[in-house]
Amino acid sequence: MVDIATRVFNQNWKIDPIVRSLLDTDFYKILMNQFIYRNSKGVEVKFQLINRTKDVSLVDLISEEELRNQLDQARMLRLSRGEATWLRGNHFYGNEMMFSPEYVSWFEEFTLPEYNLKKQNDNYELTFEGAWNEVSLWEIPALSIVSELRSRALLREMGKFELQVLYARAMTKLWEKIEKLKKLTNLRIADFGTRRRHSFLWQDWCIQAMNEGLGEKFLGTSNCLVAQRRELEAIGTNAHELPMIYSALTDTDSELAAAPYEVLANWQKEYDGNLKIILPDTYGSENFFKNAPDWLAQWTGVRIDSGNPILGAETALRWWSSKGEDTTKKLLIFSDGLDVNAIEMLYARFSSSARLSFGWGTMLTNDFRGLGINLEANPMSLVCKAVNANGRPTVKISDDFGKVLGQASDLNRYKRVFV
Amino acid sequence: MVDIATRVFNQNWKIDPIVRSLLDTDFYKILMNQFIYRNSKGVEVKFQLINRTKDVSLVDLISEEELRNQLDQARMLRLSRGEATWLRGNHFYGNEMMFSPEYVSWFEEFTLPEYNLKKQNDNYELTFEGAWNEVSLWEIPALSIVSELRSRALLREMGKFELQVLYARAMTKLWEKIEKLKKLTNLRIADFGTRRRHSFLWQDWCIQAMNEGLGEKFLGTSNCLVAQRRELEAIGTNAHELPMIYSALTDTDSELAAAPYEVLANWQKEYDGNLKIILPDTYGSENFFKNAPDWLAQWTGVRIDSGNPILGAETALRWWSSKGEDTTKKLLIFSDGLDVNAIEMLYARFSSSARLSFGWGTMLTNDFRGLGINLEANPMSLVCKAVNANGRPTVKISDDFGKVLGQASDLNRYKRVFV
Repeated sequence: MVDIATRVFNQNWKIDPIVRSLLDTDFYKILMNQFIYRNSKGVEVKFQLINRTKDVSLVDLISEEELRNQLDQARMLRLSRGEATWLRGNHFYGNEMMFSPEYVSWFEEFTLPEYNLKKQNDNYELTFEGAWNEVSLWEIPALSIVSELRSRALLREMGKFELQVLYARAMTKLWEKIEKLKKLTNLRIADFGTRRRHSFLWQDWCIQAMNEGLGEKFLGTSNCLVAQRRELEAIGTNAHELPMIYSALTDTDSELAAAPYEVLANWQKEYDGNLKIILPDTYGSENFFKNAPDWLAQWTGVRIDSGNPILGAETALRWWSSKGEDTTKKLLIFSDGLDVNAIEMLYARFSSSARLSFGWGTMLTNDFRGLGINLEANPMSLVCKAVNANGRPTVKISDDFGKVLGQASDLNRYKRVFV
Repeated sequence: MVDIATRVFNQNWKIDPIVRSLLDTDFYKILMNQFIYRNSKGVEVKFQLINRTKDVSLVDLISEEELRNQLDQARMLRLSRGEATWLRGNHFYGNEMMFSPEYVSWFEEFTLPEYNLKKQNDNYELTFEGAWNEVSLWEIPALSIVSELRSRALLREMGKFELQVLYARAMTKLWEKIEKLKKLTNLRIADFGTRRRHSFLWQDWCIQAMNEGLGEKFLGTSNCLVAQRRELEAIGTNAHELPMIYSALTDTDSELAAAPYEVLANWQKEYDGNLKIILPDTYGSENFFKNAPDWLAQWTGVRIDSGNPILGAETALRWWSSKGEDTTKKLLIFSDGLDVNAIEMLYARFSSSARLSFGWGTMLTNDFRGLGINLEANPMSLVCKAVNANGRPTVKISDDFGKVLGQASDLNRYKRVFV
């Protein structure tokens, strides 16, 4: 029997929308958003979509019209009543509300602001300008729209059963990964794959498969919408955006040197426990720890998001030890370019030194390599970053050469200051 | 949105029925059924389910209650109006109706007759007794019910996503087979997998995947219900049942020796073209051809259903040549224990000698070997055969030792007569 209502409902869409809810975003974006809403009203920023995969041209795959249609559609979204209720219901260990009534009320009125889209040679220039807390919420929908439009383009010519077999292969591939991960006794792992996912429906499937396959080893997902619908834990803390913009807004070198710590000092006024996670690599992890204030050593954990994860973890462990902390009580979160082999290796190496947690992204939600479709199906590395704040350029150095952001003169100054 | 109607509809079933239509059977059963209806009214037969896989106990897997529920449910089925219309619409190359109005009217009133079920040590004894044309229609539903109940038993403990991955693996496995078969330029292949299928829904999927993947190389399916619903060709001719019962009904040795040819002489009064297919192995193919009347060499083809298929095909080709026939116009149908390797081998060997066609059964619709579930998921060899007719025992010799049927004294007589 055809479900006539569903059929007619779908006829109302001009397009098949990729992003259908403002909660279809990462939890840390909302945690950061409330933080920005309270602490940095009036800061104007510019975010830009950047394609780090130089050999893939988005213009060849995605038409400007379909990209505009999806972005326009996302701008029509409003938080629903149930979504607002879910946000309000997020508590710190049952004590305090994570999101204030004022913030949720603001979010209920929120719609995504305008975007600027231009064709630039072989790529699109997609930027968002305006109030920080508004523009910031474009990051994840912009990335997941481009990522899924690319998937749709790659799958366009396939037959119905060919497609079903493709997904069958992808399911099998993921399940084999899950069966390997299951063997790691004290594994704690979460989905961090919203931004570069193959598609929303596929991410939703992957998360449910992880939940069934890994049971208690699966912590939850960074995706708020899936967390809400599937009754899972929403996972996330903070990101480079905060120190990058705090730093860009400083005037003197000493203010700049203090900015990455100042943002965390403000953060701990808002959030507690598992949300007190240090992301040390924005301007190089070694220097971050060298200059870090003592109070920061009491935070819950460190997230390793670039560079060699073994070196990154060892640096954090040494730092905690030097501050007299018991590392086995500390949390190391690995979240950069993970796949099963890396997870197994890091688990073997560090599971007796600290509590571990893994934020698994692209290779969880978009690993279609070797499944018999176009080779281009290798996931691409797209980011959407703040490039300036109040007209001043942002800088990111990170522990990876490929993730550097900023102009030469600014980079030199930052490198001099963060030594 | 939940489709409430579907949900409520499903609530009406006491069980999830395996066989939901009298057309969920092989086309040759209906072709033979009309033949029996017209030629052999009044013959009383007994059919019996036989488990050739001695190491699998059905009693351990399937409860008597669930088996009875499924058999009882099948007895409630009646041909629907649309199904009768489909039967009436089957023509010989657009000329003549394949099924007479009288026969279809009879079928519209038909329900499956009673069954006898007893637990016998580690197996069920399941038999059907009564008018040949009524009892005969139990063969396929009885087999597919037992086959699917076994699948359900093997899958009972699996989680939802574990199950989905199992089917994902099975889909991938079949698609890889299809991709290999696609390379055989003039391949002609049909689904013959109803009786030992994993389940109805899985067979339906396999057939559609074959149809999309192989295009014109896929001839259709022996399953009438899927043929009707998916608008495919229904494929089939005749089976051992006819010569076995014709032979059992004879009195003298000379009548017995003539019986396998007499049945074909009657068959060609009813059917034409691609339905004039010889199945020579009931009492040994070598002897069948040695003693065959000349007119039989003009029939369209030979089906090779037991023994070494290379020897079987060579025997048929030699026989046609000896009768002055052009073998390249003749059709060889291979239908015994096929999988991709055997199909490729037979195709390479015989595609220049004759027209070829493959009837692919168990390894198309029930190949779950090596997919990570219970080893017992190897398909089993179940048959449902006529064991006597008007009280006289039937005999089958075949070209395979494992397919022999009958008591020693009868076997000796048959071996003596068919030399």
